[in-house]
Amino acid sequence: MSAALQELRQRLAEIDDLGNAAGLLSWDQQTMMPERANAQRAEQLGTLSGIVHDRFTDPAIGRLLGELEGEEEALRSADPDSDDAALIRVTRRDWEKARRVPSELAVELGRAGGLGHQAWVDARARSDFAAFLPFLERNVELKRRYVELFDDEGWDDPYDVLLDDYEEGMKTAEVAALFDELRAQLVPLIAEVAQRADAIDAAPLHGDFDAARQQQLVRGVLGRLGWSPDGWRLDEAAHPFATSFGPSDVRLTTRYDPSYIGMSLYGAIHEMGHGLYEAGVAPALARTPLASGASLGLHESQSRLWENVVGRGRPFTGFLHGELQRVFPDRFGTVDSEAFYRAVNKVAPSLIRVEADEATYGLHIILRFELEREMIAGTLALKDLPEAWNARMKEYLGIDVPDDAHGVLQDVHWSAGEIGYFSTYALGNLIAAQLWQRAQAELPDLDAQLAAGDGAALRAWLGDRLHRHGRKFPPKELVQRIVGGPIAVQPFADYLRAKLTPLYGLG
Amino acid sequence: MSAALQELRQRLAEIDDLGNAAGLLSWDQQTMMPERANAQRAEQLGTLSGIVHDRFTDPAIGRLLGELEGEEEALRSADPDSDDAALIRVTRRDWEKARRVPSELAVELGRAGGLGHQAWVDARARSDFAAFLPFLERNVELKRRYVELFDDEGWDDPYDVLLDDYEEGMKTAEVAALFDELRAQLVPLIAEVAQRADAIDAAPLHGDFDAARQQQLVRGVLGRLGWSPDGWRLDEAAHPFATSFGPSDVRLTTRYDPSYIGMSLYGAIHEMGHGLYEAGVAPALARTPLASGASLGLHESQSRLWENVVGRGRPFTGFLHGELQRVFPDRFGTVDSEAFYRAVNKVAPSLIRVEADEATYGLHIILRFELEREMIAGTLALKDLPEAWNARMKEYLGIDVPDDAHGVLQDVHWSAGEIGYFSTYALGNLIAAQLWQRAQAELPDLDAQLAAGDGAALRAWLGDRLHRHGRKFPPKELVQRIVGGPIAVQPFADYLRAKLTPLYGLG
Repeated sequence: MSAALQELRQRLAEIDDLGNAAGLLSWDQQTMMPERANAQRAEQLGTLSGIVHDRFTDPAIGRLLGELEGEEEALRSADPDSDDAALIRVTRRDWEKARRVPSELAVELGRAGGLGHQAWVDARARSDFAAFLPFLERNVELKRRYVELFDDEGWDDPYDVLLDDYEEGMKTAEVAALFDELRAQLVPLIAEVAQRADAIDAAPLHGDFDAARQQQLVRGVLGRLGWSPDGWRLDEAAHPFATSFGPSDVRLTTRYDPSYIGMSLYGAIHEMGHGLYEAGVAPALARTPLASGASLGLHESQSRLWENVVGRGRPFTGFLHGELQRVFPDRFGTVDSEAFYRAVNKVAPSLIRVEADEATYGLHIILRFELEREMIAGTLALKDLPEAWNARMKEYLGIDVPDDAHGVLQDVHWSAGEIGYFSTYALGNLIAAQLWQRAQAELPDLDAQLAAGDGAALRAWLGDRLHRHGRKFPPKELVQRIVGGPIAVQPFADYLRAKLTPLYGLG
Repeated sequence: MSAALQELRQRLAEIDDLGNAAGLLSWDQQTMMPERANAQRAEQLGTLSGIVHDRFTDPAIGRLLGELEGEEEALRSADPDSDDAALIRVTRRDWEKARRVPSELAVELGRAGGLGHQAWVDARARSDFAAFLPFLERNVELKRRYVELFDDEGWDDPYDVLLDDYEEGMKTAEVAALFDELRAQLVPLIAEVAQRADAIDAAPLHGDFDAARQQQLVRGVLGRLGWSPDGWRLDEAAHPFATSFGPSDVRLTTRYDPSYIGMSLYGAIHEMGHGLYEAGVAPALARTPLASGASLGLHESQSRLWENVVGRGRPFTGFLHGELQRVFPDRFGTVDSEAFYRAVNKVAPSLIRVEADEATYGLHIILRFELEREMIAGTLALKDLPEAWNARMKEYLGIDVPDDAHGVLQDVHWSAGEIGYFSTYALGNLIAAQLWQRAQAELPDLDAQLAAGDGAALRAWLGDRLHRHGRKFPPKELVQRIVGGPIAVQPFADYLRAKLTPLYGLG
């Protein structure tokens, strides 16, 4: 290895360590930290992220990347899948982005996001959009300034710049085309289902569920999917998430609703999907920028594959039903496997995205994507957002929004300045269906394994095709390699219709 | 505030944030982290401590300290107790020390400590001193090289250099004089007590204690001493400790022995003493090097004051006994308050320092201090350590050491390169007795409050006299300010004799 590559690796390893330290500060804040420490923790996080930014945008990194141009070529010629060539490529991409952002703007984006978040908590509690509006305006203004930094990059839509931060190489026009197709499939399907709403009864999921026994259930299920205490944690958090500080330290969180078993169980399986991705990155990529998921869409494909496709699929629900009967015999003694399978697959238009089923979920996302795009283009005045939101909820899902707390104010993302993020959730659903199609073709025994609660073969398959590569390949190339084509709507639409047709007796 | 002071404060605040992030990495490692993450966590900690060292020894800090010489004088003239003048003084002291240590030596000290610790774990398990010897030799050699860096400082004893890192301004000769006096008091006292060993029965502390109820007991007791969930945590750790990441985030750990209630209860009260010191530092000193205890001896005075002087004193044991009767009615229903008081004050020579009572504890320390001093001076060959250890155990405590695991290999400190540390434990005992004498004189109602389980007045007194100052004053000056004299043996010796005389029926 050249001295330049060695130095680059050393610098990146230290930056990775600092990033993991910041990750721990954040995990701790959401799971362990005493409440009064919030202000000092914000300072600690601010200091660490400033140091990470300074170290990564250090001109020395640029100098090393320049020196390594020839070596990158040579490495790739010798081995098109060279880890080191990929490391140089990804570092160059990240560095080119990061160095354009002046420190003042980075600090101001962080600050406005923090203030926006606080204002949003209050505004949502009082359903007061007007109180939140100035903070949203500030966030959008700063995001527009951020977009301008990339004016010479030749984007087609200003939103491209934001989208690319979450989903490398994805264009707004491509997402719009996918979403047009998805919406055209979902709107009539959901309207059909809504007319047969009574076909499914979700009552089995509701009742009185002791938190300790919920935890026992969740640990048992996750254990079958690859969770083990020597390399993982499971804790509680108000807003569940997954994180990791290296492949041997993956931390999931979930939430225990005493009257609804779906919250902890499916929430934990969802986060387990994220966790398996992080845990599965090849050890050789550790302490580099490659040691993470390739994009948010691909990450979400993993959480949704395990939560919805596996977790709500007929084989695995048979296993889950057995676990529920064992842990909650009072509640599930009289609920048969079919009733449980039906309950976890109920589809119904609803107001809140994070509570939406896997069919209506896409429409929640399409609505947000469309509004974000107009916000950044300046074609929608921010003060008119609630009206636009409510109109689209009626058009796509056929429901009326009673107040902004249950409408435009429901999500945290915009308050924190995260604009361009939402579409990756729906892309994840699409990719998950494509991966599932492929896995079924390649793993003939899969259904039987899942029916027995055995996730090992699917986990190994995903590990081999996807997880181990980390960020080595651009997301589009990675999808192409695994499923033999680009991200597409049809596999998801087919999957959904195939599942819902017998459940709802559709024509 | 001058621009130079402002810049210094900003730099120190960021270093403090990084130090707290490292503190969290370490806390997490000992309480939460999955085991397989040990190696990656060591790398993360290494990176952070390297960055802290680099940032603190940055020549810019030296330049600022130079520029601030006049300002420091002026600040101190205007107010002898100026926070800013103290900040400059303490930063200069720390900087002068840190900048002398070449990065290679700092890295090597850390590395040898890590390797030594691993070797020690194995060697202790097999009671194999020979296996540990090369690692100890390496640690001592590196410490000697460290001492040489300060050759121009004019120390009287090479050990002074090491001692000063833990106890600012304390000389080896001063400790030796205190310890000579302490040993002369303790050896005959303990010999007397040992002849009446049967006078006290410690059986009430042993039994079958459910861990959840132990936790309930401990939380109840700590709550009376100032613990509250909004600014504190209490977790389990194999080797209990206290730490903090700012005054609003103090974290204690304890250990639950299912057959001995003294472990969790007195361990937690001990750590609570440390925690109260950290929590009590004035908010104005936050995010500076002043935001910590003034020395290890003073820190230990707080843990031992609460654990031994208060926690094993007659008034507070009355309260504790009531709590025990409430939480463990089966065990303590038939044990009266006097029997409990006697049990927690049993004195008996024993092999293991961390299990020693408050009387014999000092002799364990004196033995280590004397051996360390000879190790650094080179007057004791390291291979002869076990023999020297065992001889002194016989001389001071009258007991035979069966094997090195219960002798020279019992402590973690030397394995990690922490040489010069031990004496602060005994200094803490001495200071605690001096503080107690003073507090009793100034708080006439103290015994009645403690008997009612109310620690508020003592906590407030310690907060006002000691805690709020953090590292503002040199430890010797601070002791002088509070007790009106230097660290002394007599108050501790008097306290001990006054307690043990009626308990053991001494002459």
